[in-house]
Amino acid sequence: PHGARVAVNDRVDVALAVGADGVQLGSRSLPIKVVRRIAPSLRIGASVHDVAGARRALAAGADSLTFGHVFATSSHPGESPRGLTSLAEVVAAVTVPVIAIGGITLENVEAVGRTGAAGIAVISAILGAVDPAAATAALRRACDHSLEQQAAMNRRLILYYKAEKNKVGQENARQQVARDELSALEIKIGLPVLAEHLQELIDLDIAADDAAEEADDSASPPEPAENIGDLA
Amino acid sequence: PHGARVAVNDRVDVALAVGADGVQLGSRSLPIKVVRRIAPSLRIGASVHDVAGARRALAAGADSLTFGHVFATSSHPGESPRGLTSLAEVVAAVTVPVIAIGGITLENVEAVGRTGAAGIAVISAILGAVDPAAATAALRRACDHSLEQQAAMNRRLILYYKAEKNKVGQENARQQVARDELSALEIKIGLPVLAEHLQELIDLDIAADDAAEEADDSASPPEPAENIGDLA
Repeated sequence: PHGARVAVNDRVDVALAVGADGVQLGSRSLPIKVVRRIAPSLRIGASVHDVAGARRALAAGADSLTFGHVFATSSHPGESPRGLTSLAEVVAAVTVPVIAIGGITLENVEAVGRTGAAGIAVISAILGAVDPAAATAALRRACDHSLEQQAAMNRRLILYYKAEKNKVGQENARQQVARDELSALEIKIGLPVLAEHLQELIDLDIAADDAAEEADDSASPPEPAENIGDLA
Repeated sequence: PHGARVAVNDRVDVALAVGADGVQLGSRSLPIKVVRRIAPSLRIGASVHDVAGARRALAAGADSLTFGHVFATSSHPGESPRGLTSLAEVVAAVTVPVIAIGGITLENVEAVGRTGAAGIAVISAILGAVDPAAATAALRRACDHSLEQQAAMNRRLILYYKAEKNKVGQENARQQVARDELSALEIKIGLPVLAEHLQELIDLDIAADDAAEEADDSASPPEPAENIGDLA
């Protein structure tokens, strides 16, 4: 795909404000059915941790599920990983795509693919890499290879990016990543950085829209809005 | 009024989810024009701290402004209060109602009223009172008296309530307050308590709606939704 879809973590209002494609909901987010009602245009991803939660999310209307953490990860220090068997159980229990997250690396993508997972979401495998662009390309190839038995839509590579203060290195890394190698860029945004990142989010999504609608012109940069307040 | 209007602080999505009347936006919230676009049904209040900010908020389409903090307050320790003169300047600069917040007590309501402010918003004057119900009634009378030269809509008494964990005493205090003495109940909700407070918020607003539509039946309690997930 030219340009990744953009999903905003948790904040339905931010997703609406920036024209994102979707929102990723966790256990402390607004309920799925409520989000469907107030934001019918958004694709809804739900983060789940077991089969029961997956079934609840499916019944409530989630478009996709993210399951994790599959392997040990620095994002969840001290917590036991849920493992590939649990991932496979969740995949078998639902009819929507299941994205694996947590400790996914080049080395284990193939094992993840064998569970029937529709794709992977990573943080440190890209943002923590010495060469984030190369890491993304390698993961892209691994996804395409490991998941080649599945439909094209099911080779998802998602970069989960936390927009926080004082993460300049991570920010630089994210900017090096070729977005046409990602299936989605999922953004977690905290209140303290909302205002300063909002324009960036809007620009990101404009880029995605441009890419989708004008595939022949994907090299030209998006025209950023002059001012956030002028968008309405 | 029978039952207070309910406004949710900052979170446009939560305001939409619970069917609140409005949202109160601060400098780190989504921009007013964006909120108007994604949530046209919500009344928009904006928190401002000077005349320039008030004019910007008015130009962007705010329905009302909250100005503060007027007096020294425990909510903003160590910060200089902005004072009655600044409040009066803001009131004079805009055409929408201006609510005064910050250190408002029974003793200074009359002085606040002389600035032309449309009302007051309090936290500790009610939630910190030994008898919150009596404090609310007294503030209600003071507002009606001090602001009696103004139009009826401009005698607003707003309780600003921060929904946080481990504030059982404050929670009990809030429940003692007769809502028909408040003009609005403004709720600030943090992510950690969102899920557990959501039903309470929804119930609050159902109560307000019932009161508005069935004034003769205001003694009957609202019918709470069985389950948050069933509301859609």
